Amino acid sequence: MDLADIGVTGLATMGRNLARNLARHGYAVAVHNRTHSRTQQLVKEFGGEGTFVPSEDLAGFVASLKRPRRAIIMVKAGAGTDAVIDQLAALMEPGDMIVDGGNAHYADTRRREAALRERGLHFVGTGISGGEEGALLGPSIMPGGSAESWEALGPILQDISAKVDGVPCCVHVGPDGAGHFVKMVHNGIEYSDMQLIAESYDLLRQALGVTPSELAGVFREWNKGDLDSYLIEITAEVLEQVDAETGRPFVDIVVDQAEQKGTGRWTVQSALDLGVPVTGIAEATFARALSGHPEQRAAAASLAGPDLSGVDGRELVEDVRQALYASKIVAYAQGFDQMAAASREYGWDLDLGAMATIWRGGCIIRAKFLDRIRAAYDADPHLPTLLADPTFAGALAAAQESWRRVVTTAVRIGVPTPGFSSALAYYDGLRRDRLPASLVQGLRDYFGAHTYRRVDKEGAFHVDWSGDRAERPA
Amino acid sequence: MDLADIGVTGLATMGRNLARNLARHGYAVAVHNRTHSRTQQLVKEFGGEGTFVPSEDLAGFVASLKRPRRAIIMVKAGAGTDAVIDQLAALMEPGDMIVDGGNAHYADTRRREAALRERGLHFVGTGISGGEEGALLGPSIMPGGSAESWEALGPILQDISAKVDGVPCCVHVGPDGAGHFVKMVHNGIEYSDMQLIAESYDLLRQALGVTPSELAGVFREWNKGDLDSYLIEITAEVLEQVDAETGRPFVDIVVDQAEQKGTGRWTVQSALDLGVPVTGIAEATFARALSGHPEQRAAAASLAGPDLSGVDGRELVEDVRQALYASKIVAYAQGFDQMAAASREYGWDLDLGAMATIWRGGCIIRAKFLDRIRAAYDADPHLPTLLADPTFAGALAAAQESWRRVVTTAVRIGVPTPGFSSALAYYDGLRRDRLPASLVQGLRDYFGAHTYRRVDKEGAFHVDWSGDRAERPA
Repeated sequence: MDLADIGVTGLATMGRNLARNLARHGYAVAVHNRTHSRTQQLVKEFGGEGTFVPSEDLAGFVASLKRPRRAIIMVKAGAGTDAVIDQLAALMEPGDMIVDGGNAHYADTRRREAALRERGLHFVGTGISGGEEGALLGPSIMPGGSAESWEALGPILQDISAKVDGVPCCVHVGPDGAGHFVKMVHNGIEYSDMQLIAESYDLLRQALGVTPSELAGVFREWNKGDLDSYLIEITAEVLEQVDAETGRPFVDIVVDQAEQKGTGRWTVQSALDLGVPVTGIAEATFARALSGHPEQRAAAASLAGPDLSGVDGRELVEDVRQALYASKIVAYAQGFDQMAAASREYGWDLDLGAMATIWRGGCIIRAKFLDRIRAAYDADPHLPTLLADPTFAGALAAAQESWRRVVTTAVRIGVPTPGFSSALAYYDGLRRDRLPASLVQGLRDYFGAHTYRRVDKEGAFHVDWSGDRAERPA
Repeated sequence: MDLADIGVTGLATMGRNLARNLARHGYAVAVHNRTHSRTQQLVKEFGGEGTFVPSEDLAGFVASLKRPRRAIIMVKAGAGTDAVIDQLAALMEPGDMIVDGGNAHYADTRRREAALRERGLHFVGTGISGGEEGALLGPSIMPGGSAESWEALGPILQDISAKVDGVPCCVHVGPDGAGHFVKMVHNGIEYSDMQLIAESYDLLRQALGVTPSELAGVFREWNKGDLDSYLIEITAEVLEQVDAETGRPFVDIVVDQAEQKGTGRWTVQSALDLGVPVTGIAEATFARALSGHPEQRAAAASLAGPDLSGVDGRELVEDVRQALYASKIVAYAQGFDQMAAASREYGWDLDLGAMATIWRGGCIIRAKFLDRIRAAYDADPHLPTLLADPTFAGALAAAQESWRRVVTTAVRIGVPTPGFSSALAYYDGLRRDRLPASLVQGLRDYFGAHTYRRVDKEGAFHVDWSGDRAERPA
């Protein structure tokens, strides 16, 4: 029997579809699952799609791979991942590659990569986005790890990835945990995107009294312009869905408590460590958390709101479209800042334009918009913030009056738009000549002798606040 | 020579002042510092204030303590703390107590407490707030640790703490890391308080064109009402300060980049893990981060703003006062939620009303307002959110129209108020009957088969979005 080109262990939906994707592209795929029946089922159902080499145990799985071996782990991220890595590593030889395709935390990936590197093995933490369908038909793939592992894995991963204009949605992201980091930020941006969409829907519905299916038409229309993206497209589908049982709009029968699996939270926690303000992702993550506290919401239900309940004017639709686009630019600018900061912190040398490129297809946040981000970094690889790119600066200038009207409308009628308003506050903060942070520094010097710097000369200073109030060098 | 009642090792400003505070209250205080000259200087300068028992090394320090020994570590939080703990523990005997008075992360405190407990020692992580002056004259003290250690330490700590209406600003917070957790949230709330004050100052100055010293008068006036607090009081002092060198307002010569030492960041990171939305603290932490990126701010300086540059009406002052009070209620409600969630998570059985009580004096966020929080928890110890307390609900109802005018004014003239607007969005979100989180759940089910719950029956469901669009039990 011929040896397999690559292997997949862990054949739940994502793993199974990835194995099928590889087989469909002509690779002989070793397959293994802890419960062997699942492996047998895969071969039975989809054996005709290509060459599968099934094994009952990991030893057989590793033995069935060509050297250097390429084994992809597709198990639920966590302690289970360490166990499978340990078992695989014990069976492998120097130069072999273990690929983790789960949603691992990048710090775990850095730890695992360092440990396996000492044993002469390559560990490749890779983000894979696009859900079940993407795994089968072409996901966005974000592999980290060594340059050598990329040489052996890159062509295969690019082959099975999504393509946009013929360009694969897969590049070598960078060393060690870079791939999982970028996937984490991708998911954080996805949180922000969805929150902004939810606010757009909510505000328009409340302000104009329109139905979800009428709003489906609005989103469908928006999908033809600047906002063209997968999430806008499926928003229209979800808004149009009618519950068969009750005849009510689908969104009205769904419990309004958004769940989360952790990557949004990780993104914000990492951004805090890196000192990068990702207010859009934070507000989105917290909006989900707020929605998930029914006992608090019940207790707060009788709090006072404004008397106004709606507003006139169909121009609100265009205003909201502009606010959504402007807020989206801010959310992406913040996410790209976070990647740039991590790149500096960990020495990853990330190509930010390439990150935009590989998100253009296969993944949840795929959007036309990403071409504009790539163009911005093509024009200036050291762009300090995406907001300063002339195209985006122009879009923001065109949108800002609409954006302000949207936030003031929401505030006046009592509809929460934390995503829109925090994005606008970020925009107004970043463009500000002088921020009141100087007062914060003054207060910190007052109560904690934390010192301050002056605008007109070097050094740190402290005022003797409890004494003569004179300034002294600190 | 008599043995000392309690000891302090680490005699930088905070440690020295704490030792003096103990001596002034009649305790014989063992003192030690790595550099012995600092110990000698303390005894020389302040020996007349009470009884100090100096030691040149830790062995002598431990030997000079009455049993069970009570040793307070006052060193910079970090790896150094572990080293001192190890050295002390090796010299101590079962039943002795090591107190860490630094700003340690509560997770470190939990780890240290568990390790020392196994060796029969008590480890007490304690928050101490109030800066240098508080340490000397009476800080707010938040000790965690065992009930036995509280029995031996409590009377001393309450003795040296601040008092308000004769009540000490010190209680036994709870087991293991509870004290340092509560101190962390205290600092997080402090970030939020300062951000809201900074926004109030900034908006009034921009909108009305008034000077910092005129605004000092406004804050002084505010300090007579609901907002009566240390931070409002010192804001007036800082705004009134004139730079001697240039004759300009002090706040105009200070570099407008706010610094941070980490507890705000920790608070938000912990809240994310606990699933508690602390948007006020997050926006405050991120506002500091934003201010600290001069290269991005320079690049964004030419972004478009609104044409409006000011507004009429002195009623804005009262509106801002109301907005500040309402936003402050939200910030505290979020912080108290976080403590409640941690109490459940770690089994701490925190008395939230008592936390408000011990913050009334000695610490940076001391305020009249905290009496109202204590009263709210006295009236209902299981209050789901402070916003639902009748007094606060009434204050919010009275403030909400002003609050909305403030945010809309700031948005219209382009002054960033992320603290005000996120607090208002939280308020409008929590009181909302239906949130658009149902759309988020629908989208998640569409692209990731994450399933959803229905409002009208139990169970989890999934729509076959790529097939017949029928709902099936998941």
